[in-house]
Amino acid sequence: MIGLFDSGVGGLTVVKELVRKYPGVDFVYLGDTARYPYGNKSKETVERYAVENAKFVIDRGAKLVIVACNTASSLAMDTLRAKYPDTPFLGVIKPAAELAVADSKKSVGVVGTRATVGSGIYEEVVKELNPKLKVLQKACPLFVPLVEEGMFQDQVTKMMVRRYLMPLRQKNVESLILGCTHYPFLQPLIERFMGKKVKVINSAEAVVDKAQKMNPDLFKVSEAPKQVIAFTDTSDHLDKLASKWLKKEIRAEKAVL
Amino acid sequence: MIGLFDSGVGGLTVVKELVRKYPGVDFVYLGDTARYPYGNKSKETVERYAVENAKFVIDRGAKLVIVACNTASSLAMDTLRAKYPDTPFLGVIKPAAELAVADSKKSVGVVGTRATVGSGIYEEVVKELNPKLKVLQKACPLFVPLVEEGMFQDQVTKMMVRRYLMPLRQKNVESLILGCTHYPFLQPLIERFMGKKVKVINSAEAVVDKAQKMNPDLFKVSEAPKQVIAFTDTSDHLDKLASKWLKKEIRAEKAVL
Repeated sequence: MIGLFDSGVGGLTVVKELVRKYPGVDFVYLGDTARYPYGNKSKETVERYAVENAKFVIDRGAKLVIVACNTASSLAMDTLRAKYPDTPFLGVIKPAAELAVADSKKSVGVVGTRATVGSGIYEEVVKELNPKLKVLQKACPLFVPLVEEGMFQDQVTKMMVRRYLMPLRQKNVESLILGCTHYPFLQPLIERFMGKKVKVINSAEAVVDKAQKMNPDLFKVSEAPKQVIAFTDTSDHLDKLASKWLKKEIRAEKAVL
Repeated sequence: MIGLFDSGVGGLTVVKELVRKYPGVDFVYLGDTARYPYGNKSKETVERYAVENAKFVIDRGAKLVIVACNTASSLAMDTLRAKYPDTPFLGVIKPAAELAVADSKKSVGVVGTRATVGSGIYEEVVKELNPKLKVLQKACPLFVPLVEEGMFQDQVTKMMVRRYLMPLRQKNVESLILGCTHYPFLQPLIERFMGKKVKVINSAEAVVDKAQKMNPDLFKVSEAPKQVIAFTDTSDHLDKLASKWLKKEIRAEKAVL
């Protein structure tokens, strides 16, 4: 069983990628919708929530946990590993940073929530891998609500893409990390704006590939796959959103932490 | 001591109105920023959070509690009154509805979050006061993030005001209730778009006036006013936002519920 958690529905882009590549896999996904979003919360609070979320998926049988949330990946990995030393944890930061470094000689762009960008985590990880690279970051706080409204191709979204990304385009970044699990829905608009020379990196793809390499056995097709989606707060609105994103009928289980 | 609580910073528009009219008043405000926003959460979850928030302000000495949050006002008033029968609670819904009814002969417009609009609470309250009035509602989920980004006069905000409010303007509503505590920051844009004939109702003003009528003694100037602003999650970003909105230096206390 693979465990995944996120502050809300955003991490479902990782689930989407997981079942696209490995349709018969066993997984349990927890979205902490009752306390969503984590983006502007303190490190201490995010750590506490992450530990509670991890406990839920580990209790359900997860042998590897994907932290499908950029905020928790940037603030809570050390705490998670210290609390559950027997479980491997994989955040969404490092796999994406590795792809960006492989594709860039001079500069890497990063977009994310205010908290992720403010933490400087991508810069830190990219520079560990290649100290010569420049890292240019930009917080894009309106992208999450625009994605949640399904405005993937809207005129307003195009204006915000232009406004947020213009400084990165002008500085000729060679790759651009989508440092928030919601952002893959904006990937077509972002790629069009940034142009063909810029490699746009979707962290959902990157983390699924890396997890499979860490423990290929977990990614084998199960005879009767157990695929659980749970939220700490459930509603018709969330079920509809999840169903639309995953393109199948979802009725989420209510998780009590 | 007057108590106020909200899911986050939005209710500070009520504090702003309170100290504008009664600068020397004693109050304690709790913003539940660790669990913000409530807008898409279930009734059960919102009730539980509201009770915890009320306990905090009552323990601090509040003799009257303003529920400065539309979601909690629409979902949790009965639960709050049952749990704390000795404390008067005042939500933001009814005072605004009363002003709208006084200003309208045929139809009232309401804007709010998806949860507030979906609850149908404004329609219910307006129709109790005058069953002949038509109530036209519109959910405006992007207004809260636009306000939190400080984009009060932005081109993107103008486009969203136009898109959300056009159906209400076309149907000639006579009054428009701003059914979310964040929205007063958009009042100038909204008034310009709706035109002079439409009375735009700010629920912060309405609830402060009504609370003062309920218990005028609490609104007297205190010799050394105790004015507390507490958040369940504190950060520099939130302090900056609160300071900007209230136009004075705020360092919020960290509340542990």
